[in-house]
Amino acid sequence: MRNEFHDTLDTLVADLAEMCERASDIMRLATAALLDADVSQTGRLPGDLRELTALAVSVNDRTYRLLALQAPVARDLRTVVAALHIRADADRMGGLASHVARIAAKVHPNRATPADTADLFAEMGATAVRMADEARDAVRSLDPALTERICADDERMDELHRQLFTQVMAPQWQHGSLVAADLVLLARFYERFADHAVEIARRVYFQATGHSHATRTPTPSA
Amino acid sequence: MRNEFHDTLDTLVADLAEMCERASDIMRLATAALLDADVSQTGRLPGDLRELTALAVSVNDRTYRLLALQAPVARDLRTVVAALHIRADADRMGGLASHVARIAAKVHPNRATPADTADLFAEMGATAVRMADEARDAVRSLDPALTERICADDERMDELHRQLFTQVMAPQWQHGSLVAADLVLLARFYERFADHAVEIARRVYFQATGHSHATRTPTPSA
Repeated sequence: MRNEFHDTLDTLVADLAEMCERASDIMRLATAALLDADVSQTGRLPGDLRELTALAVSVNDRTYRLLALQAPVARDLRTVVAALHIRADADRMGGLASHVARIAAKVHPNRATPADTADLFAEMGATAVRMADEARDAVRSLDPALTERICADDERMDELHRQLFTQVMAPQWQHGSLVAADLVLLARFYERFADHAVEIARRVYFQATGHSHATRTPTPSA
Repeated sequence: MRNEFHDTLDTLVADLAEMCERASDIMRLATAALLDADVSQTGRLPGDLRELTALAVSVNDRTYRLLALQAPVARDLRTVVAALHIRADADRMGGLASHVARIAAKVHPNRATPADTADLFAEMGATAVRMADEARDAVRSLDPALTERICADDERMDELHRQLFTQVMAPQWQHGSLVAADLVLLARFYERFADHAVEIARRVYFQATGHSHATRTPTPSA
């Protein structure tokens, strides 16, 4: 039976999906700034990030209120606690995406990514954006199949992360330690962004099935 | 009035403090391995990390049960929700400390940290361990003064993080991009470890005072 509690929960879930979408947007803009050295669009990022954080604070307050006033149990309790964690993950994804933009802005008008690493970062960016979009869809639909897809994307992301390391650490690396340091951090930001999308997917999987998803350790590390 | 609920909560809080202590231990061993290239003690780290994760899972299950069966409100609800977050932070601190140990093991029998960066990493390690110990004490005592101390330590950690970057990116850097890449990641692990200690301190502050601590943005990013 539908009631006020479930209406509030629906709004909360819609806002969590919106948070994932905003994290995806910020990452798309940040990657464009990184690869094209075009920072014309990044002026809106601080505002976007503030809005994401405001949404996170609002979701947090309403989640608390639901816990305190409605004392949900069973599946409803799982959903409300999941909301707290998904909120933290999506908020952190926005922060990591903005770190990418910050490195792009720091080296502007130069490119942070030398030509021989651009394809790799383009794929990292596209994968990260797709994973955030999939996380948004998973939050909305509770479809456990999306968890599989996000985990497959995450394996690709880890592979790209390893490739970048191999490239930076090869004896024939020609771009110096300054560039290497930026690239290693950038790759880490993409990889952590992806990890948070996986955490969201695993929360959704647990909500939908009541079981933990098998491909990772049982404790999420946010 | 004391009751079974509060006894369960006390056990939970004791286990959270224990989690912080274990994260501190893992970071102490990892830093020793890093600076002395002595990996004789790191054999126990996988087991230590598994125990930390097992504790995290157990805290999580009991927190859920408390929420579902006791439906706490007000201050008790704040404590129970804080437990969920502190569990995630302390678990992640263990993971970050084990990343430090992994880099030390990877380059063994060489040192990952050149002599001219050893003092900096020694101070990062000591600061990280102290912050985890302070987080443990804050969880136990709910003393808001500890939050101030942890935030002061975090400022020093950020300063050390900046120093390492300046050093790695200086034109006179002589250790190549392979070493630079490891050091940049290592510094990031220490800095994130410290950030999670700050998050724990901020949770404690909120539990103790009902207000958010003012020195950071209102949303924790785990």
